[in-house]
Amino acid sequence: MKSLRIGMIGYKFMGRTHSNAWRQVDKFFDVPARPVLKTLAGRDAAAVKEAASQLGWEGTATRWQDVVADPEIDIIDINTANDTHAEIAIAAAKAGKHVLCEKPLAMTVEEAQGMVDAVKAAGVVNMVCHNYRRIPAIAQAKKMIEAGDLGRIFHYRARYLQDWIVDPNFPLVWRLQSKIAGSGTHGDINAHIIDLGRYLVGELDEVNGHLETFIKERPLPEDPTKTGEVTVDDAAITLARFKNGAIGVLEASRFALGRKNHIQLEINGSKGSLVFDFEDMNRLKYYNEADPADRRGYRDILVTEGVHPYVGSWWPPGHIIGYEHTFVHTIADFIRAVVDGKPVHPTFEDGLEDQKVLAAVEQSSKTRSWVKV
Amino acid sequence: MKSLRIGMIGYKFMGRTHSNAWRQVDKFFDVPARPVLKTLAGRDAAAVKEAASQLGWEGTATRWQDVVADPEIDIIDINTANDTHAEIAIAAAKAGKHVLCEKPLAMTVEEAQGMVDAVKAAGVVNMVCHNYRRIPAIAQAKKMIEAGDLGRIFHYRARYLQDWIVDPNFPLVWRLQSKIAGSGTHGDINAHIIDLGRYLVGELDEVNGHLETFIKERPLPEDPTKTGEVTVDDAAITLARFKNGAIGVLEASRFALGRKNHIQLEINGSKGSLVFDFEDMNRLKYYNEADPADRRGYRDILVTEGVHPYVGSWWPPGHIIGYEHTFVHTIADFIRAVVDGKPVHPTFEDGLEDQKVLAAVEQSSKTRSWVKV
Amino acid sequence: MKSLRIGMIGYKFMGRTHSNAWRQVDKFFDVPARPVLKTLAGRDAAAVKEAASQLGWEGTATRWQDVVADPEIDIIDINTANDTHAEIAIAAAKAGKHVLCEKPLAMTVEEAQGMVDAVKAAGVVNMVCHNYRRIPAIAQAKKMIEAGDLGRIFHYRARYLQDWIVDPNFPLVWRLQSKIAGSGTHGDINAHIIDLGRYLVGELDEVNGHLETFIKERPLPEDPTKTGEVTVDDAAITLARFKNGAIGVLEASRFALGRKNHIQLEINGSKGSLVFDFEDMNRLKYYNEADPADRRGYRDILVTEGVHPYVGSWWPPGHIIGYEHTFVHTIADFIRAVVDGKPVHPTFEDGLEDQKVLAAVEQSSKTRSWVKV
Amino acid sequence: MKSLRIGMIGYKFMGRTHSNAWRQVDKFFDVPARPVLKTLAGRDAAAVKEAASQLGWEGTATRWQDVVADPEIDIIDINTANDTHAEIAIAAAKAGKHVLCEKPLAMTVEEAQGMVDAVKAAGVVNMVCHNYRRIPAIAQAKKMIEAGDLGRIFHYRARYLQDWIVDPNFPLVWRLQSKIAGSGTHGDINAHIIDLGRYLVGELDEVNGHLETFIKERPLPEDPTKTGEVTVDDAAITLARFKNGAIGVLEASRFALGRKNHIQLEINGSKGSLVFDFEDMNRLKYYNEADPADRRGYRDILVTEGVHPYVGSWWPPGHIIGYEHTFVHTIADFIRAVVDGKPVHPTFEDGLEDQKVLAAVEQSSKTRSWVKV
Repeated sequence: MKSLRIGMIGYKFMGRTHSNAWRQVDKFFDVPARPVLKTLAGRDAAAVKEAASQLGWEGTATRWQDVVADPEIDIIDINTANDTHAEIAIAAAKAGKHVLCEKPLAMTVEEAQGMVDAVKAAGVVNMVCHNYRRIPAIAQAKKMIEAGDLGRIFHYRARYLQDWIVDPNFPLVWRLQSKIAGSGTHGDINAHIIDLGRYLVGELDEVNGHLETFIKERPLPEDPTKTGEVTVDDAAITLARFKNGAIGVLEASRFALGRKNHIQLEINGSKGSLVFDFEDMNRLKYYNEADPADRRGYRDILVTEGVHPYVGSWWPPGHIIGYEHTFVHTIADFIRAVVDGKPVHPTFEDGLEDQKVLAAVEQSSKTRSWVKV
Repeated sequence: MKSLRIGMIGYKFMGRTHSNAWRQVDKFFDVPARPVLKTLAGRDAAAVKEAASQLGWEGTATRWQDVVADPEIDIIDINTANDTHAEIAIAAAKAGKHVLCEKPLAMTVEEAQGMVDAVKAAGVVNMVCHNYRRIPAIAQAKKMIEAGDLGRIFHYRARYLQDWIVDPNFPLVWRLQSKIAGSGTHGDINAHIIDLGRYLVGELDEVNGHLETFIKERPLPEDPTKTGEVTVDDAAITLARFKNGAIGVLEASRFALGRKNHIQLEINGSKGSLVFDFEDMNRLKYYNEADPADRRGYRDILVTEGVHPYVGSWWPPGHIIGYEHTFVHTIADFIRAVVDGKPVHPTFEDGLEDQKVLAAVEQSSKTRSWVKV
Repeated sequence: MKSLRIGMIGYKFMGRTHSNAWRQVDKFFDVPARPVLKTLAGRDAAAVKEAASQLGWEGTATRWQDVVADPEIDIIDINTANDTHAEIAIAAAKAGKHVLCEKPLAMTVEEAQGMVDAVKAAGVVNMVCHNYRRIPAIAQAKKMIEAGDLGRIFHYRARYLQDWIVDPNFPLVWRLQSKIAGSGTHGDINAHIIDLGRYLVGELDEVNGHLETFIKERPLPEDPTKTGEVTVDDAAITLARFKNGAIGVLEASRFALGRKNHIQLEINGSKGSLVFDFEDMNRLKYYNEADPADRRGYRDILVTEGVHPYVGSWWPPGHIIGYEHTFVHTIADFIRAVVDGKPVHPTFEDGLEDQKVLAAVEQSSKTRSWVKV
Repeated sequence: MKSLRIGMIGYKFMGRTHSNAWRQVDKFFDVPARPVLKTLAGRDAAAVKEAASQLGWEGTATRWQDVVADPEIDIIDINTANDTHAEIAIAAAKAGKHVLCEKPLAMTVEEAQGMVDAVKAAGVVNMVCHNYRRIPAIAQAKKMIEAGDLGRIFHYRARYLQDWIVDPNFPLVWRLQSKIAGSGTHGDINAHIIDLGRYLVGELDEVNGHLETFIKERPLPEDPTKTGEVTVDDAAITLARFKNGAIGVLEASRFALGRKNHIQLEINGSKGSLVFDFEDMNRLKYYNEADPADRRGYRDILVTEGVHPYVGSWWPPGHIIGYEHTFVHTIADFIRAVVDGKPVHPTFEDGLEDQKVLAAVEQSSKTRSWVKV
């Protein structure tokens, strides 16, 4: 069988999820090529060696440029901090590598545009890793919406709630500093429900958002007796209008106690409704107005059957899967696209569209009015 | 409009629920006769007067015999302790009154048989008040089962769980003494899930039960420094075989912390399944095997639509009802039966059948083997 | 016992809920006066007589002015169309009657202000009937928030979703015409979650809303071959900032298939969170950050215990109550206030505040920007 | 780091789960030795080679005897049909290999006893793979019960429900023939809830079960125009008494439509209750009677925190795991036990105890009475 040799840049949280996916994909999916975990890159030589050993990579590099330049490498997988995505991706495209890049694609719309231009010019397969699109329940929802099962869509309501910085003594880590992180909840988790809205409902027309910082000073990590200013948002709330006439309400927060990774979506259309909750990700709730009047109700579909997207490659019905499987599905489709030389969603153009929405929400929060995407 | 004059014997917990139902029924249901709350009977003259004033009764009596003998009275409603049901009901039937009697119908199969004989001989309308049969969700379940929507039934599993005597210092009240209460959970709450099993699934063929008493001594109510023996069961667990080939598992307990009035039923058939939980009594869950393979799941039917049994007489969809409404539904049907002179389930014969099952379970717990009903 | 004689104006949906509450309140609550259902008023003599007979009223009137002028009447209960509230309430106050008025209090802020002035000048007890405040779970939530159990509040998110006009052939009833109804979802159901937000979280500082009409033409009720313009909103989505620094997201819609009377609230604070869903109104979910780290989770509190507000007057634990009980609780508190001559929330001043928020949201939807309340 | 070389016998469903666990364990857990997937054995040379390639094994064998005899092998992992467990395990023990064996341990109590004798005589580490013990929520439950958080246990109720043979045209596969499968639901899934009962509540004293076959004839797989007799149970229902005074109700079925791999457990004690549902396996519900009276309720613990057993080695809070992870946890503990030379539950002795319970239930179904374990 054909092999694809992977060079991966970055090995923290996303490096772990991607490594797992590269290792697992051909054990469960009938992919047309086997990935070879060839080179893992990171600046700290000792740390990257340890990570490679732990995560199953053959070799290491301390300069991503060397990996991009390596003629043995077919695919570059970018898991570094957001401010480095553009440079690496553009270089990889120029070197003729297919590129998988973590979300958000870039720091700005301009950067994202540059990345789109580069992959188009190079003709390489490109994908931004919005793993939640390939939760089986979400893929099933997409299938149903495309088949018209919901009819005309009226409402998209989405929440992405976490609770890890409610404590005011939680330190001012880099994620809470705009110069490094760009934004807070907005680029980190609001980005996910924006992408899912575009995927499931359609393109956005205009948005009206508000970014809030509840705790404005926090102890410095290096010296907890001193404090510094929090320069990112703690929460983002947004009204939205889609081009197809649907309206949306989006909310992202790190201040919702008890909500750990709570992504709740509800879509209401003229023929039915769908509800999803990530903490119960193997289920999809579906209301079908065409059911007989005395037995209508949200169906609690356990999305673990062979007829459901992706999940049949794992275990028998009722044997649930988890978070990391969504990356395996993503990479399975990416491998197929690379072998076939065909686009695979979400492309860098999707990442660019997401970026435009993120920028519009930020602007609307400043101008305190609606902003066209 | 025609009136029906009610004489009610007993005014404690069930007296309150029945009084409410008699008062409310013609405000919400289109019944062919209006009940007049004529006489409330109880042995303590002062207490019964106060209760009558509180509950809306016109007059009182201290001897039930006087109410039964009163030619003005059309209906006798019996809410007294179980050991008095038979005597009152038989006297009422002989006096030509229609009779509504709280469950369990009697103390023994023999007593119940005597009551059945009396109402048959007198030709009066008779009903045992198994109010849970007229929860809208249960009535909807019955309708679906009768229509064949579940196909052949394989399983009946039912739990009736409470937690009010887990504390070993809870005193030895009369309900925990067999000479007064007859049995513990068995006659009190197991009786309900036995009746619902007969109603929804069919007649029982044989049973195999175990009655357990976890706390064998408790403080005396009159002198907590002394203890007395608990002579009833704290929990009852039962295996059952129905005549139609279904099998059942029933469990009743007062030792399930956190379960307040938790009646959970599940019925599995060859075409679908139904699940009900009393603490969420406005819902019925329904699994339909005929749904498309990728969108099967338990439907969470909110049983508050006009098309559902009983509930349309109350409020608009989504505006839920509660416990006492089940008694109003029961009495609405009873009134119709009285006016029409037709039987209304559950009749005293149903009460007799329930009694036979209760007796069989008790016997099986003693013989430690299966007993034919 | 003291009596209070009630004159009620209007007998449709709210007339039914209020009549039931007046009838039931002294059967279950230890109120200091018994209500006498003296006069029911409505313009159609035959219809009001039939309603009075059905709902339990002693007499009828066809002019509300006669009821307000009747010296026998102590309390005026207003359940008429919104555009008549102000006139009736002001007349009743001038006549020295205590006044209970359905929500929304008025058509405009000015009207509401006039009503507040009138009841203040007259010194009568006044209350706007926001019945949802006295759902036991909501009253329990209020108690916990006031006790500081949630700490500083960050988020209020509220949805009031229904689905009764999704069908484009649903006719252009008066509720869909602004000249009669004022607004659509906004005044009807958004008003409820605005009032609950003020009650539970605090006063609003500024709002940013969007009112949407999905179906712009509908068949005329009198002639379905013709259509007319829908002049009210089908949905209202709102961002909000509270004076205490909390932020809110509110959504009201009649276009959410499968949601019948779905009022879902979530409040996140620095010490805990609360979640409520009306279709499951006997439950309150509570997350307590102070629980041990390995056993934290949303508690599913079945609000049916004697220690919970109101509900102990009904049935034992686990025996749930429903929609109409919230009116009984409201009227029990109103009677106490009348007898004691003390204010009872929500007063007409609360109604006025609600009206100011409603007006600000409408204005923001026009100006497409934030508006101070 | 030390290596442990694995020889695995059998490569079907359980072979896939075990292979995955051997591959993944050192990527996520800090185990003291790395497993080497050395030899996969199966009788069909071509099939075993393909499986080895797919599942990540270095080499293959067609005779398990060769693997057991291989001095390079440290551990034998048995995933074959139940009727071969004893022979292979005893040979492996005699050869000084540590042994991991799929459940049920054996076909009979006698066989299981022989296996226990063999591993004891050889002094090898031995484990029966009851993977559900190491679901994080179950491990958390065990921790809480051992700490006394539930107090005295009164009730164990357990259901293991599936629905894959409801269709009477489902063919007479080997799992439905007693000569090959031993039993139906009983040994396959009842075994799991028996083991969990022993693990969480304690040893059983006596049982009273009923095995039922609903569909007695099915089409032959090789010729669907003919039918053969179903010689195993379709469902097993059991009453149980534990040595510590608790009582239990267990139910296993393949005839519960809509239940895919529904393992629901509830344990009620004098201080609290626990509820678990496998299809929602990242959650544990906990009722604590010591909570304040107005805020008691089942806590919905999302068992994904670092403080919870096992799960912290995977992903951040709220990022759920799935079915196969339970095998990784099992094998992580097995590796530690092998390196330390210490026992690890469930040992073969546990498997023997489980077998005794299974045998007692079968006997009670025949004698129709209680049977001592």
